[in-house]
Amino acid sequence: MSSPAPRAAGHDHQGPDHRAGRPGHRTGPDALWSVEDHLADILAAVRPLEPIELNLLDAQGCLLVEDVTVPVSLPPFDNSSMDGYAVRVTDVAGASEEFPAVLEVVGDIAAGLAESPHVGPGQAARIMTGAPLPSGAEAVVPVEWTDGGLGGGPVTGMRARSKAPEGAGGQVRVHRPAEARAHVRAQGSDVRAGDRALAAGTVLGPPQIGLLAAIGRGRVRVRPRPRVVVLSTGSELVQPDEPLAHGQIYDSNSFALTAAAHDAGAIAYRVGAVTDDAETLRATIEDQLVRADLLVTTGGVSVGAYDVVKEALAHVADEDEPGSGVEFRKLAMQPGKPQGFGSVGPDHTPLLALPGNPVSSYVSFELFVRPAIRTLMGLPDVHRPRVRATLTAGKALTSPKGRRQFLRATHTDGSVTPVGGAGSHLVAALAHADALIVVPEDVESVEPGTEVEVVLLG
Amino acid sequence: MSSPAPRAAGHDHQGPDHRAGRPGHRTGPDALWSVEDHLADILAAVRPLEPIELNLLDAQGCLLVEDVTVPVSLPPFDNSSMDGYAVRVTDVAGASEEFPAVLEVVGDIAAGLAESPHVGPGQAARIMTGAPLPSGAEAVVPVEWTDGGLGGGPVTGMRARSKAPEGAGGQVRVHRPAEARAHVRAQGSDVRAGDRALAAGTVLGPPQIGLLAAIGRGRVRVRPRPRVVVLSTGSELVQPDEPLAHGQIYDSNSFALTAAAHDAGAIAYRVGAVTDDAETLRATIEDQLVRADLLVTTGGVSVGAYDVVKEALAHVADEDEPGSGVEFRKLAMQPGKPQGFGSVGPDHTPLLALPGNPVSSYVSFELFVRPAIRTLMGLPDVHRPRVRATLTAGKALTSPKGRRQFLRATHTDGSVTPVGGAGSHLVAALAHADALIVVPEDVESVEPGTEVEVVLLG
Repeated sequence: MSSPAPRAAGHDHQGPDHRAGRPGHRTGPDALWSVEDHLADILAAVRPLEPIELNLLDAQGCLLVEDVTVPVSLPPFDNSSMDGYAVRVTDVAGASEEFPAVLEVVGDIAAGLAESPHVGPGQAARIMTGAPLPSGAEAVVPVEWTDGGLGGGPVTGMRARSKAPEGAGGQVRVHRPAEARAHVRAQGSDVRAGDRALAAGTVLGPPQIGLLAAIGRGRVRVRPRPRVVVLSTGSELVQPDEPLAHGQIYDSNSFALTAAAHDAGAIAYRVGAVTDDAETLRATIEDQLVRADLLVTTGGVSVGAYDVVKEALAHVADEDEPGSGVEFRKLAMQPGKPQGFGSVGPDHTPLLALPGNPVSSYVSFELFVRPAIRTLMGLPDVHRPRVRATLTAGKALTSPKGRRQFLRATHTDGSVTPVGGAGSHLVAALAHADALIVVPEDVESVEPGTEVEVVLLG
Repeated sequence: MSSPAPRAAGHDHQGPDHRAGRPGHRTGPDALWSVEDHLADILAAVRPLEPIELNLLDAQGCLLVEDVTVPVSLPPFDNSSMDGYAVRVTDVAGASEEFPAVLEVVGDIAAGLAESPHVGPGQAARIMTGAPLPSGAEAVVPVEWTDGGLGGGPVTGMRARSKAPEGAGGQVRVHRPAEARAHVRAQGSDVRAGDRALAAGTVLGPPQIGLLAAIGRGRVRVRPRPRVVVLSTGSELVQPDEPLAHGQIYDSNSFALTAAAHDAGAIAYRVGAVTDDAETLRATIEDQLVRADLLVTTGGVSVGAYDVVKEALAHVADEDEPGSGVEFRKLAMQPGKPQGFGSVGPDHTPLLALPGNPVSSYVSFELFVRPAIRTLMGLPDVHRPRVRATLTAGKALTSPKGRRQFLRATHTDGSVTPVGGAGSHLVAALAHADALIVVPEDVESVEPGTEVEVVLLG
C-alpha cells in the first residue's frame, strides 16, 4: 500500500509543502523521516484540550487555565496563633511569675464560635489558636505564660472544656508582659483580597489545591486529562493467563502502553488485541472514538501483506474532510522505523500507529505519544529529561549508519550502562532499564568512556 | 490533658523503655521529641500491608512480593524479524539483482496462523514479522531484497493480502544471499523458561507490566495501595464555595492532604471537616475504620481547651488491648510542634494526628505521613530526596534555638531561595514552593551563601 500524501491532523495548512521544506525530509514511500521531523509534525497537529470546570480534587495534576484571584483576605480576621488568653497590653505590663497580673476571665473564644465576649480593662478571654481576637484585646499571652486559672505555677496547657468548664471563668494569673499584636495573626497577612493566588498555567499539586480550598474555590477551570485508547493488533496475540497455541504470543503492548499513558497523566483505556482484519479494526476504532482524545495502536504498520492498521486507516479517513487521514512513514531510527500518524473520525481525533514489537512500541511511546499526551494536557514541559552521561560498557556500542539508535540502559550518577542487546524484541531488558542511550544517526560506534546523550525514563 | 504512656501501634514491646533510651528523648508532658525519634517511632510501628493478587493494570506502582519465573521461553518459537520470504540458505547462495534466485512461493505465513507450509528445495514462503519460521526454512530474506513476486526490480513492501491474494503464490526473485538464521529471532533469545523475570521487591512500572503480560501473567501478588482516610477537624471550617461567617475559614487541609496522599501512592478518601465535638469525631473515626489502612487527622492536637482530637482519641483506644492508643507529643520542630501518633480500633489502624495549621499539617504530612504511606506499600525508598544547596536570600535566616525549622523554598540548580516568611499560616507561599530548607536545632542563623540541607518536594 502506498503512503497517502502527508497530512497532519487538523492542520491541513501545514501539509506537504510545509514539511517538504524541512531539512532532511524527503517525500515518497522511501522517504526517511528524522525523529525530530516526525515529533514536530505530531506536536504541531496536537492541540491542548478545551478547558472544563472540575472539582478541586479531580483537577489534581491538571493545568489551570485561569488566573485565580483571592476573593477574601487570608486570614479573614485577626486571630490568635496560640492557645492562651486575649488581653490588653497595659493590663499585663510588667507582669512576672513573682508579681503576676491577675485578670478576670470573661469567657472562652473557640475557633468557629459566632460570638466573642468583649475584653475590658482588667479582663481576659481564654482564646484558642485560630479564634478571632475579641474586641478590646490587643495581644495574646500563651497559656504557658499563665497559671491556666488554677492559681498555681505556670501550666503546660488547658484542660478540655468538656471536662473542666470552669476554665472559661474565674481568674487567671499572667506571668509575662505582651507587646501589642503579640501572637496575633493579622487579617490579610497570608494573602489579600484581589491578589493573584495562582496564575494560569500552574499545574495543580497538593499545595496549590490547598491554597485554592483555603480561598474558598471548590471548582477550577483546567485542561482535563486526555482520554487515551490503546489497541494492540495482531492475530497472534493471546491475553495473559490464556493458553498459547503454536505461533501465538501474549499481548503485552496494550498493557505496557496503557500503563505508560496513565503514567503520563492520561485516563487510559486498554482495548486489548484486535485481530488482523481491517474491517474488525476499523469497526473497533470507530466504536472507541466516542471516548478517545487520542488513539494509540500497535502493530500492522510495516511493509507486510497483513499490516491491517495501514489497510484499515485509509478507509476510516474521510476523503472529503481536509486534515483527516493517517500517514505511514519510515523513520531514521532504531527501534521504531515504521510509524503512522494522523487523525481519524469526524472530530479528527489524533492517532499514533506504533510498530508492534514490544520494545519498538515502548520506545515510540516515550518519544512520540508521551509528548502528545502532555501537549493535550497543555503542560509546559512535554518531554522526558535528558542528561549527558559517560558510557560504561565492556565493548564499543555499534549502531547502524543513518539511524538514530535508542538503547535500553541503566543510569546512575553520571554513568550509563546498556542493558541487554540491541534486538528490538528484548522486552526483558526493557524491564530492567531506566534510561535510553541515544546514538546519533552519523555515529556507528561508541567507545566506553565516551559521553553520550541519555533519556531518563523516570 | 496529660499524655498517656507512650505506646506504638502494634509494637507494645518497643514501648516506653525502648524510646526513653534514645538520645534526646525525654518523657512526661514537657518532653520534646526530635523529628528523627518521632519518625522512627512511626516507621517501627507501621508495617507493610499484606499482599493481595491484583490484575496487572491494577498493580501499577505497587511492589511485587513474589519472584516471577518465566513459564515459557520468549519468543516461544523461532520467528521472523522482517516481512519477507523464508528460504533455504543454499537456494539463495550467490543471488544478486542481476542473477536472482527464482523460488516457488508455497504460501503465506502470517503471525498467528495455526499452520505453516513446509519449505522444500527451490521453494520460499512469504513470511510476516513475528510469524514462526516454517519447517525446512533456515533464514528470512527481507521483502526489500526481492521483487516481491512482481517480476520487476526490488520492491519496498508487500501489497495487502486482501487486495492482492496472488502474492501468496507464484514466483519470487531473491536478489541477495542470506546466512543461516538471518532475520530469525531464536526461541528463548529474550527470556528462557525458568529464568527469573522479575524479583520480589520490584516496583511495577509500564515496562515491568509489559514483561509480565509478555510471559502470560495476568495477575500478580503485590502489596496494595493503602487506603488513607483524611479528616480535618475544627468548628471554624467551612467547605469551599460556601459563604464564610465571622470567625470562619475554609477547610483546606482535607483537600491538600488528600491530594498529597494520592500523590504518595495511596487510595485517598477525603472525609472533610468534623466539628470540634469529641463524640462526633469519635463516631466519624469509628465509621471510617472499615475503609482505612491509615487515618490522618488535622487540628485539635495542641494545648487548647477545645482540642478534640486529643480528647476523642483517648476514648477510642481500647484499654484492654496493648498497642492501642494515640500519644500526643511535642516535637522539637517548627512548624509542626504538636503531633499525635498511635493506633485506633480493633485492628490497631495507625493514626497520625497532625496540627491544624495548613502549613504545619502539610510539612508534617511530608515528614511523617508520606513515609508511613510508602512503608505501608513496602517501597524501598520512603523518603523525599534531600540535597545540599546554597542559600540565596537577601538576609540571614533566623531560626529558634532547639527547634528544627522547615522553611518553604524554591530550588534550582544547586541554589535554594526561601518563599514567604516563617509564619506557619502562609499557605500562599507554600503553593509557590518546591522544596523545604532544613535548619538544624542548634543553628539560629543562616547567612546567605551557606550550604543548607534541602528536602525536594518533587
